[in-house]
Amino acid sequence: MLNTLFTHRSIRKYRPDPVDESLLSRILEAGTRASTTGNMQVYSMVVTSSGELRKQLWEIHFKQNMVLEAPVHITFCADLNRFETWCRQRKAEPGYRNFLWFINAAADALLASQNVCLAAEDNGLGICYLGTAIYNADRIIELLGLPGGVIPVAAIVMGYPAEDPGLTDRLPLEAVVHREKYGEYTSSRIDELYREKESLESTARLLEINKKETLAQVFTDIRYTRPDNELFSEKYLELLRKQGFI
Amino acid sequence: MLNTLFTHRSIRKYRPDPVDESLLSRILEAGTRASTTGNMQVYSMVVTSSGELRKQLWEIHFKQNMVLEAPVHITFCADLNRFETWCRQRKAEPGYRNFLWFINAAADALLASQNVCLAAEDNGLGICYLGTAIYNADRIIELLGLPGGVIPVAAIVMGYPAEDPGLTDRLPLEAVVHREKYGEYTSSRIDELYREKESLESTARLLEINKKETLAQVFTDIRYTRPDNELFSEKYLELLRKQGFI
Repeated sequence: MLNTLFTHRSIRKYRPDPVDESLLSRILEAGTRASTTGNMQVYSMVVTSSGELRKQLWEIHFKQNMVLEAPVHITFCADLNRFETWCRQRKAEPGYRNFLWFINAAADALLASQNVCLAAEDNGLGICYLGTAIYNADRIIELLGLPGGVIPVAAIVMGYPAEDPGLTDRLPLEAVVHREKYGEYTSSRIDELYREKESLESTARLLEINKKETLAQVFTDIRYTRPDNELFSEKYLELLRKQGFI
Repeated sequence: MLNTLFTHRSIRKYRPDPVDESLLSRILEAGTRASTTGNMQVYSMVVTSSGELRKQLWEIHFKQNMVLEAPVHITFCADLNRFETWCRQRKAEPGYRNFLWFINAAADALLASQNVCLAAEDNGLGICYLGTAIYNADRIIELLGLPGGVIPVAAIVMGYPAEDPGLTDRLPLEAVVHREKYGEYTSSRIDELYREKESLESTARLLEINKKETLAQVFTDIRYTRPDNELFSEKYLELLRKQGFI
């Protein structure tokens, strides 16, 4: 188990081989064993394998090739719709169309997604999370027919790897762990924590390709710029209102 | 690995035995191997083991005994502060104080938390998520000294189990899995999907104790009521504003 946790890499190239149906069911079932708020299971997993739908998802996910290649696409959604439908059918008046339950349901969906990913990897499959699930959640809702009370919070592709990338670098453990209380990040501590990342050969290449002086500028000026961040924030907040969570 | 995924139960009673420091580090490191947005690791894990602080956390988490008993308490936070501090120190202007990055950072924190939980369980430890981390996030921020750009999204207790509960029931897999697109929940489908849960002996006991006609009413009228949900929604949204995410 620890081995599976410690060997995760995002896979971006896939073989066309399908995932066996009974294996897929077992992987999805592993998702349902994750902790869930009040055992309410307020999430849904939409498993898409049709070529036509995956082509449309590929467009939505900024045409990343792995979405076309990987035989399985799973959209993890915060989902109050099923629970509310059950309540109404059982003489109970649900009060879950609010931000607290978006947070609870998003957590449910994300914990389930991580179990699904690990179960897949433990069986020789590869996965990659698609951050674009948040960016274009409106188009996913339309394509997959998600009703009110349901909103995508994550998406993954899954299939047999056609590449074998190394592990991705991580900051030293002490960069993300605080003991007892939150510790301050002093200037010298920041230098120390980012030293290894900044001295990687891949970082040097990024600076050259992007003509930037620092790695941080690659993030702020190119990958995740303020105008984009603000645009997609507004879009997702608007969608939370539309789906009934705010 | 699959065995660990399939045997998760929340543990609510703990032995006082401490968790060995090197084991704890290995477990936390497993957390850092989870997928993270753009490899930015925009989360923090605050590990609290001091008796005095855990007593204060116990108050914050509605005095649930397990918070006093379990030797380790971990608060998982969406954290843009470290990344921003690094950016500013590297001549880069971060644009991450917005809702998109709360969502990205919350996802980072939650995926890491699930890895931590599984690594712990794989080593004979027990865990329990504390939903109250959202309810009283304001008091956690104060106690743990979380700066702007940082907000709790989950908390767990961890330690050696002093109980051996059975697995919790789950809805049938088809209740949470949709094939290709989202499927409608018709009245008869809801009846079918909830039949097993509703016929459990534990459900009958709940109805009797709470003097309710349906299990759904136990949720809507007692456990998670609309006034509470709306109060805690407002509190957490206010906190997102205060910490700079909206």
